[in-house]
Parts: sequence; C-alpha cells; structure tokens
Amino acid sequence: MYVIPADRLAGSGTALRPGEVWLVGAGPGDPDLLTLRAAAAIGAADVILYDRLAAAALVHARPDALRIPVGKRKGAAELPQAAITTRLIAEASAGRRVVRLKGGDPFLFGRGGEEVDALAAAGIPWRVVPGVSAATAAPSAAGIPLTVRGVASAVTLVTGHGERGALPDTVDWNAIARTGGTIVAFMALTSLASVALRLLAGGMSSATPVAVISRASLPGAFAVRTTLGACSLDVRRAAVVSPATVVIGAVVARAEAIRETWDEVRRAAG
Amino acid sequence: MYVIPADRLAGSGTALRPGEVWLVGAGPGDPDLLTLRAAAAIGAADVILYDRLAAAALVHARPDALRIPVGKRKGAAELPQAAITTRLIAEASAGRRVVRLKGGDPFLFGRGGEEVDALAAAGIPWRVVPGVSAATAAPSAAGIPLTVRGVASAVTLVTGHGERGALPDTVDWNAIARTGGTIVAFMALTSLASVALRLLAGGMSSATPVAVISRASLPGAFAVRTTLGACSLDVRRAAVVSPATVVIGAVVARAEAIRETWDEVRRAAG
Repeated sequence: MYVIPADRLAGSGTALRPGEVWLVGAGPGDPDLLTLRAAAAIGAADVILYDRLAAAALVHARPDALRIPVGKRKGAAELPQAAITTRLIAEASAGRRVVRLKGGDPFLFGRGGEEVDALAAAGIPWRVVPGVSAATAAPSAAGIPLTVRGVASAVTLVTGHGERGALPDTVDWNAIARTGGTIVAFMALTSLASVALRLLAGGMSSATPVAVISRASLPGAFAVRTTLGACSLDVRRAAVVSPATVVIGAVVARAEAIRETWDEVRRAAG
Repeated sequence: MYVIPADRLAGSGTALRPGEVWLVGAGPGDPDLLTLRAAAAIGAADVILYDRLAAAALVHARPDALRIPVGKRKGAAELPQAAITTRLIAEASAGRRVVRLKGGDPFLFGRGGEEVDALAAAGIPWRVVPGVSAATAAPSAAGIPLTVRGVASAVTLVTGHGERGALPDTVDWNAIARTGGTIVAFMALTSLASVALRLLAGGMSSATPVAVISRASLPGAFAVRTTLGACSLDVRRAAVVSPATVVIGAVVARAEAIRETWDEVRRAAG
C-alpha cells in the first residue's frame, strides 16, 4: 500500500506558473461549460495549444497569448502527437506558462496520459484540470439521466475509434452488452454499425432505446431518438454530424420529461 | 426515429428565469471546479437547495439567497427525496428562481432523473447544467488517466450503494469484470469488500492495481494505491474517509508520472 498525501497530489497548487504545463479540460464546446479554474488558466497562459473543439471562443479571447491549434479531425492530427509533446516541452523549458486545452476531460479518451508521460520524463511540472465530459453534457442536454435507481446503476463509456480507426481491440463488447447499465459511445458515428452489431451479438435487444446527440452544447445541436437495431441507418437519414455522443439503454426511454418534445421526423427512407 | 431540434433541447436557453428549476452540477467540491454557467446560476438564484458536498463555499457566498441544505449522508437524507421535489415545485410555482445544486453531475448517480420527472409532471420548466464528475476529477488529481490507447479503451462507472444500501441489483458484476476497461466505483467505501469479491469472482486478478482517492479536490485529499486483493483491508488501514472514488485497472499502474511521489506507508497491520 502506498499513500499520496494532499500536498503531493498532482491536483494541488493554485496558479499556473512559468515553466509548467497544465492539461486543461475545455468541456464539450460551449465556453460557459468551462470550469472557473480552466478559465483562469487560459487567462494566465503565455502559450495555448488547443484542440479544434476546445472552446475556440475562449481561446480567441486571448489574442495576446501564442495560440497554436493542434486539433484533430477524424484521427488526422494537424500536428502528430509526438510533435505536440515536443512543443509542450520546448515552451515550458523556455519558461512560459503553457496550457494544453483539450476537449471534454483530458484523461478520458484524450491521450492526456501520453502527454503527461512525456512531460514527466522531461522533468516538466504538469497538472490536469478536469473538465465536463460529453459523456454527461450530451445526455443532460437531451434530458436523459445516465443512471436511474432500479433501472441502470452503471455506465460504460467506450470509444468507437481505436488506434487504427477500427474498434478498439482491448474492449470485450460481449461484456459491455451485459453489464446491465447504460452505454455511452464516443467518436462512434462512422463505426456505429459495427458497435451496434457487436452489442446485438452480445445479447442486447434490437429494440433497446438509443439517443444520438450531435454537437451537444454547440450551435446547431440536435438529438435523434432511435433503437439499437435502427440507429446506424437513422444517423445517416438524419444527417447526424460529429461530434456525436451515442447513449444506449433503458434510461433513454426514461427521459419522460423530454419525450413530449421529440418530433417525429418523416423522411423518405432513401 | 424522432429528432429534437436545437431550440427545444433541454440545454438551450441562457439565463435562470423566475419559475424555473435548474439542476446544477457543482463538481467534486472545490469551488474552482464549478462551471461558469453553474456559478452564474448560483449568482442569479432566489433559492438554492444544495447537497452537503455541493460547493458549500459558493453557496455561502450567496447569503442573500434562501439556502436550504438537503444533503445526504450515507443514504440518510436530511429531507426525504419526495420532500425535496415538493419544495422545488413549491418554490418555482411561487415564481422564484430555483437552483438545485448537486454534487458532481446531476444525471450521474445523483437521482436527478427522479427530480426532473417530478418537475415535468408538475409542469415546471427545468434544465440540467452538467458538472465535473468525481469520476474524472479524482483520477486527474492522482495522475491516473482513465483511458490509454492499447491499455483501456472503456471505462465503467458503477455505484457501490444501491437502493437499500446493498450493491445495486441491476448490475452484472461478472460482465463489469470482463469489459477490458477501467472501473470507477462511487460510494463504494463501505461496500468495497463486496465489490472486490464480485470482481475477483468475475475473473479479475487479485493483483489488479487499485487507487482509492479520498476527498478529491477537497481539503485533506489523499490517495492510496493498493490492489484488488488488498484494497478492502488497506482502506481501513489508511483510514480512508468518504467521499472516496475507487479506480480499478491497468491504468492505475500507468500513472508513471505520479508513481515516484507515492510514499510507502508502513503501518502495523492491526
């Protein structure tokens, strides 16, 4: 057994200092969903390396800072991951206050662990500021509770985008299908047919309620309610765009309060 | 297929208006981890019903608002759930701006779904402001990435505290043990022996790394690193107090950057 006391927890300390790198969660995109600490860090930064979806509005509120977009689109980074960490280390080594602004939470599907490993190996002081994940922001926007006592007491978050764009190979989809809880799939728009097939093969019913929330918290957000059997077709019919969050499970049907506001959309199937 | 357009998403709109109830996520406890929107809602509220852990510092920054503690301790609410929803409805019906401030995120293990159901049934306009969950805040503080490519591409969040204080009966622990991802257990301090036994029975190794983070983001925070086989004994030896977040899986050992700062604590086993 090992113990970390409070003053050595990576989360301790107060202000972004010269030579430090903070990995800051920007939340799902709406600048109002930044934390107070994230906003303060952005305000104090000399250099901001930011993902495309990471609260662009707030980044642009700091024209005096050096702002470097490193955002990824469909897995293709403008800067390769190694170049991002090299740049973080170089800027901190030059004595600058560095913010690495990442969409959602830095340690949840954000490769933050790899960046922290590189910083630590280089002896750069670092810190992680957690952020609001789309895992909760998207269901909140659509009125879907992730857990309901007696209905779902677990939530599994999973990515539909593994190392080479395929489904991640460390995931046992049969087990995920059987937890009895809610499933939230990230970056699963292009792989939704594969995700749905794996979960159906794992024993889930094709009638399982599914909600797909597109661009949660961003302009033009919308949500589609469908089923596990129909979802991969319906996201194409509804022209869902990324980023999209897919919520699968009985809780989707429990969104009683929102249900009356869902409009049936009649489109030609073709 | 049903579609909710942007202007009807529950997340739309800007300011807390008279007669509305907003369920606001307060984050893990540190007021700096409130979102900008949550802080604005607290600032605008006439009435604030708040959980004990929900950013008490900020609630007390609003002495002019009516502040009603409804916080729960170990499942025993100061106000029963039905009384909370009745009060929310009464305050909103009287034309007040009502904030229901909840620890973490309102729709993740917070009974927010039940409160929204009651508000909707009473015709009260409501909204959910998502918050930073301890699910990410606690691992961030301890330097533990929840996902690492090639190591863990899924995260299962589960509560150790079901309807009658026992483990929730809608959860298949064998399946949770087999997802191949990280497991984060909430409110699992008193039930940790049961949780560990279920996961061991599901096939997980007793050597699986475990971190228990106590009071993440609050004064006196500390973390214990242990294993699945030893964790229930170790939390007693280390006198871990709630709230505590338990992180289980290979990612705990990947916290390379923090590992050198973990101090071995030698205590008598008794």
